[in-house]
Amino acid sequence: MRNIKLTIAYDGTNYHGFQEQRGTGLVTIQEVLEKCLSRLAGRPVRVIGAGRTDAGVHARGQVVNFDAAGWGIPAGKIVLALNGVLPPDMAALHAEEVPPGFHARFSARTKTYRYTIYNSRIPSPFWRLYSYFVPRPLDVAAMKQAAAHLVGRHDFASFQAAGSPVKDTVRTLFEAAVEREGEEVIHLVFRGDGFLYNMVRIMVGTLVEVGLHKRDPVEVTTILAARNRVLAGPTVPPQGLCLERVEY
Amino acid sequence: MRNIKLTIAYDGTNYHGFQEQRGTGLVTIQEVLEKCLSRLAGRPVRVIGAGRTDAGVHARGQVVNFDAAGWGIPAGKIVLALNGVLPPDMAALHAEEVPPGFHARFSARTKTYRYTIYNSRIPSPFWRLYSYFVPRPLDVAAMKQAAAHLVGRHDFASFQAAGSPVKDTVRTLFEAAVEREGEEVIHLVFRGDGFLYNMVRIMVGTLVEVGLHKRDPVEVTTILAARNRVLAGPTVPPQGLCLERVEY
Repeated sequence: MRNIKLTIAYDGTNYHGFQEQRGTGLVTIQEVLEKCLSRLAGRPVRVIGAGRTDAGVHARGQVVNFDAAGWGIPAGKIVLALNGVLPPDMAALHAEEVPPGFHARFSARTKTYRYTIYNSRIPSPFWRLYSYFVPRPLDVAAMKQAAAHLVGRHDFASFQAAGSPVKDTVRTLFEAAVEREGEEVIHLVFRGDGFLYNMVRIMVGTLVEVGLHKRDPVEVTTILAARNRVLAGPTVPPQGLCLERVEY
Repeated sequence: MRNIKLTIAYDGTNYHGFQEQRGTGLVTIQEVLEKCLSRLAGRPVRVIGAGRTDAGVHARGQVVNFDAAGWGIPAGKIVLALNGVLPPDMAALHAEEVPPGFHARFSARTKTYRYTIYNSRIPSPFWRLYSYFVPRPLDVAAMKQAAAHLVGRHDFASFQAAGSPVKDTVRTLFEAAVEREGEEVIHLVFRGDGFLYNMVRIMVGTLVEVGLHKRDPVEVTTILAARNRVLAGPTVPPQGLCLERVEY
């Protein structure tokens, strides 16, 4: 095996998520990437992704690994070759050879997600595909207080999509930052050792309710303690979410 | 007549330019805006635009005016009403009542256009619709020198699309700025009392050649003097261009 770690970026607008959906006819990031790699390698190539982003979710630093055995290309040339065949809404950023034991998902130590809110009375044509539009003013200071309660090692069962089969719902969140960019844009950045299904989008939905003064910041602690999805806020839409970085 | 001045923004990606193209079946900004205004007003509304942006060109501050006679809505409520019916890639920003003599195009004193270049070895999925991708390094200092020669009152005939019927090709450029934003993005901002057809895109094409060291910055003066389109650089693609502002 010749194990290659590849970092990619994509605009998820026109894809049905990262993961291959066989037999559905839906176009996914994984399928397009595998098709392009297979074309270059001259044989079928399968990739393993670090995170399975949903439909409409973006990535600035998704990581995959694949076996390049028999494909003579040096790792340093893969990025240029791949960018010659990928569609314009996907890009290869970096490729390197890694030990055979490297697994894009299981070897990941932390992931960083960014969620972007466009907070203005007037919607923006330029942010519509990359943010969640909230027309009422948000109290960012209150959102920061609430976010601070999420940091640490907790059982995040309340922040997992209902019906998820995952049983061990304890995760560690190292960072939960809320920052304004200019007048209208609010970024929420979460770095953790793992994320449950829809966890970022439910955390953001809860923080938005805090920002609208529908909830007190300290309520986050009771929501965590309850281990009950019903108590948390709604799942905000996918287009505000971006997988920023995976660390190994 | 009840004359309304309306400022709008739009992502031009999915439109065949600003101006109505009757009988072609092509969707334009003007058509969609007029349809939405007519629906709200309950009668046909026609708009006059300040600048006729081409297919794929964006606007953050296009201005139009229209007659709202008989439509009872206060000017201050038009933005909210319009944003309720416009598609998400268009937005109304501001509306106010102006004297009957106000004409969005003829009353304009200056227009400001921004052209954005994404200058990196690796293309960006997120900038692809809002910039021109130049993979080789650009010398921004040389581009600034060349841009400075464009400022002032000049005959810009060399920077007009070939075959244009406009005879008086003298315009005044008040500003021609070249600025980096971070590592990869370069903004070129032009403010002038009027622009010939494709003038900004031909000026940028010429400055890019300077930035690639294919031309000396001072060549801009000989190109201006020659009054010959053939001497200037190529017309760069539309998606990097944005009508930022119109001043009256």
